[in-house]
Amino acid sequence: MTNAVYPPYPPILTQAEQEYLLTNLKDWSITHGLAVRPTSAYVAEDLDPARALATTAPVTLFPSLFPRSCFDQARAVSQAYSELYSAIAADEEWLGEIVKELLEIDDFIENLWKVHLAVKKEGYAQSLQLGLFRSDYMVHVSDSDSDSRLSVKQVEFNTIASSFGGLSSQVASLHRYLHSVDAYPEVTSLLINDASLQSSGSVPQLASGLAKAHRAYVKSDKPNRPACVLFLVQDVERNVFDQRHLEYTLNTDHGVRTFRLAFSRVLQDTSLGHDRKLIYTPPSLSGKQWEVSVVYFRAGYAPTEYNSQRDWDARRHIERSAAIKCPGILTHLAGSKKVQQVLATPHSPHLARFLHDKSAADKLLATFAPIYPLDESEAGLEARKLATDPQMAQKYVLKPQREGGGNNIYRSEIPGFLQSLPKTKWPAYILMEMIEPPTQGNAIFRNGEVQSGEVICELGVYGACLWRDKVENGVVKGRGVLENFEAGYLLRTKGAGSSEGGVAAGFGSVDSCCLLDL
Amino acid sequence: MTNAVYPPYPPILTQAEQEYLLTNLKDWSITHGLAVRPTSAYVAEDLDPARALATTAPVTLFPSLFPRSCFDQARAVSQAYSELYSAIAADEEWLGEIVKELLEIDDFIENLWKVHLAVKKEGYAQSLQLGLFRSDYMVHVSDSDSDSRLSVKQVEFNTIASSFGGLSSQVASLHRYLHSVDAYPEVTSLLINDASLQSSGSVPQLASGLAKAHRAYVKSDKPNRPACVLFLVQDVERNVFDQRHLEYTLNTDHGVRTFRLAFSRVLQDTSLGHDRKLIYTPPSLSGKQWEVSVVYFRAGYAPTEYNSQRDWDARRHIERSAAIKCPGILTHLAGSKKVQQVLATPHSPHLARFLHDKSAADKLLATFAPIYPLDESEAGLEARKLATDPQMAQKYVLKPQREGGGNNIYRSEIPGFLQSLPKTKWPAYILMEMIEPPTQGNAIFRNGEVQSGEVICELGVYGACLWRDKVENGVVKGRGVLENFEAGYLLRTKGAGSSEGGVAAGFGSVDSCCLLDL
Repeated sequence: MTNAVYPPYPPILTQAEQEYLLTNLKDWSITHGLAVRPTSAYVAEDLDPARALATTAPVTLFPSLFPRSCFDQARAVSQAYSELYSAIAADEEWLGEIVKELLEIDDFIENLWKVHLAVKKEGYAQSLQLGLFRSDYMVHVSDSDSDSRLSVKQVEFNTIASSFGGLSSQVASLHRYLHSVDAYPEVTSLLINDASLQSSGSVPQLASGLAKAHRAYVKSDKPNRPACVLFLVQDVERNVFDQRHLEYTLNTDHGVRTFRLAFSRVLQDTSLGHDRKLIYTPPSLSGKQWEVSVVYFRAGYAPTEYNSQRDWDARRHIERSAAIKCPGILTHLAGSKKVQQVLATPHSPHLARFLHDKSAADKLLATFAPIYPLDESEAGLEARKLATDPQMAQKYVLKPQREGGGNNIYRSEIPGFLQSLPKTKWPAYILMEMIEPPTQGNAIFRNGEVQSGEVICELGVYGACLWRDKVENGVVKGRGVLENFEAGYLLRTKGAGSSEGGVAAGFGSVDSCCLLDL
Repeated sequence: MTNAVYPPYPPILTQAEQEYLLTNLKDWSITHGLAVRPTSAYVAEDLDPARALATTAPVTLFPSLFPRSCFDQARAVSQAYSELYSAIAADEEWLGEIVKELLEIDDFIENLWKVHLAVKKEGYAQSLQLGLFRSDYMVHVSDSDSDSRLSVKQVEFNTIASSFGGLSSQVASLHRYLHSVDAYPEVTSLLINDASLQSSGSVPQLASGLAKAHRAYVKSDKPNRPACVLFLVQDVERNVFDQRHLEYTLNTDHGVRTFRLAFSRVLQDTSLGHDRKLIYTPPSLSGKQWEVSVVYFRAGYAPTEYNSQRDWDARRHIERSAAIKCPGILTHLAGSKKVQQVLATPHSPHLARFLHDKSAADKLLATFAPIYPLDESEAGLEARKLATDPQMAQKYVLKPQREGGGNNIYRSEIPGFLQSLPKTKWPAYILMEMIEPPTQGNAIFRNGEVQSGEVICELGVYGACLWRDKVENGVVKGRGVLENFEAGYLLRTKGAGSSEGGVAAGFGSVDSCCLLDL
């Protein structure tokens, strides 16, 4: 049933057509930095110790079809989502209550919270906060016959290190280029045309968000040294060009100086000066120093990155500093699954607490897939009924609450799994209504190979939000929003997994939207 | 002695400094398409059958030093050189006399001439001609103490397939970027600064040359089908991104459609229509046809590319067509070494024939390194004296006249080599005064490795020239120039070869100029 949403797609290419498309795709992508460093499976590390090779980033050959109404729906709630999450991040007490419930079951959340408490005790050195968010959705096909048979449902909301903004602009341009050189057969012109292809402004908009924060810092904190934006990165990063697009745009379009600093070198290369200003001393620049206006986290977001006290010290060091954090710890915590769950629990009062505009709140609500706790609350008891009934459980997925850990349990496997677990452990999981995305055909070019088959798409909409916390008696109680704008989109596409001999599941790629009216 | 021209350069980097520079160089180059497909020595072909990998093009870490006066001198004669060579290409009788002397010793020239004669017999279908030229120079250090101790001397003049215009703009931008992020230690700031770094407009200017020719064709030949510029390319091209930069600029900035066609597929994929218009039918586009406005040769320039009658048929096919050739056969022939030689023979009357402006002619003359024939003319007899005297021969190189063939004989080896040759074979060679370029230090990044040492530089200045031949009784006799403009520069840098353990000779790279007043 769900397969029937889209028309047959993509067209079947002759060998000459596919060669023409691929040659153009391969050359354009490298000329425009739509690239990644190759995996070690593609190029063994000892063959390229300098890591000087690159290859086309995993991309779809065709822009995937996407319902225009769903695309519009996701964009329409972008600012409201930034409004919501910045409000949550600026409500220390409320967030504290949520976190409290997780302390027992999630070390990572616990450690983040400890960092927050330590900084809070000392007092905050910076009230400006920057969020570069990405709200991820899938199209959900409901089994009702109503007008709203198709809608987007939120998969997750990212408040830290939202990636692919750099490549997303590029892949949309790639698909537009391929269309312009007739790489898509004329038979597709009713689907693929100038009006249906969607550009993504993610590079200029995300860079603009960072630039605005940088300028706000310079204005209010009056640096004594040249100011810079610090990209906090992982030691080895295959997706470096994605990040570089933002850096170069900051340099070129905004005249903002940037540096990349490995998370592992934070304590070595930065120090706190007067007023806890974050001072960066690049080891390569013989003693020259910069004052950091914004720390942009492209590392330090996953539990696996914190392997010693030193890593936590580094995080606390940054959090203590007067630099604007993108994001600060409270914003990072606001992005935890638990927050998503309490917002999306049926009949939850929380959304109204943060979003006073009823119409905006209703629009957000429509993008929630219901999420239930498995505790002994009213909603929790309701959920336990659903999860233990083999018939009802078909529509759900069971997810561990812990950040970044454990596997999901799907549909009919849920009742059995819960039976095997003592009831005291049930609250460590949440029950989420499955999003039923429509599949379609496409082909993905990755590691020099083409795989064709059924795919599913995930749409991310970026938002940039700059706000200033209001601190009363050392507690963050609300904020004033200075900037809040949508910042482009990302389409990620992967194998549907169910089809045989097609695109392998988890075989992901960057993509762009070919909108259609359904 | 020649080593003493430049100040000590480049600065010695600490390991941290070199790492910082290289990381920035590697990331920037891929993000901006300053790239090549890797050699098979770097990545074996079976590891990447799809040819989807790319790497940084061979580049220098630092912009090489170059005397400002020499840079200005080379640019100042750019338009005069285009004037000269377009005049030569439009003087069929004069060129015929030159070619006649080569027919015996050079098959390639002979075959090109045959193509010309066949087309001439039939009558020319297109009078518009496009030249995208590159005049290559080295700085010459004379042993006199005069003011003009440093000057540029011409190495060669390219009338076909002048490459690296795409990458040249990019490498100049790379060096400027590295400077802007302090990758060059402050100690170099007297040498490397915003004023000394030289951008190259080769991408926009060469693309503009092609666009002007395209528009002139559309205006005068009124195509019946959509018109396109055809890039004639080799089957396998590692330097594809260099060419793609021009294509994409043509597409984006000028709205001109381009296609790439392998020289080996000319006869399969193109045909001559009414008025010998060149019709291109891409095999990938199910029967759609384009009318070719301009054939831009990035293949078909070397003797080794013509291996069968079919290759010559393909060349004739294009030459017969109504497309504007960049270049036409007469222009291709005008670039032969013999032409350079007769122009640069001391006391030659030929320059004055083509350049009536005495002051422009004198400036060109100053860029010629004297070249002598070894025949029985007056200049030839003078040359024989120089070449057989072991002392005098020190300042010369002996080059075969044949295009693209044979090795050069240097300095003291010349007299012995000539002794071993019957005198009747001597006219197959020319004697050229050696250009004595100053060396300097630099480092080259290539195939993931850095090599440091003494290097020498070759400066190329691009020129774009569009003209209309005047044909009288079926013979090209003069032309009217429609466009003539300088089109950026290229600096190529290679190991000086003489230094031990340094950059290997022939280890070439693209570079940009850091001008200095000497």
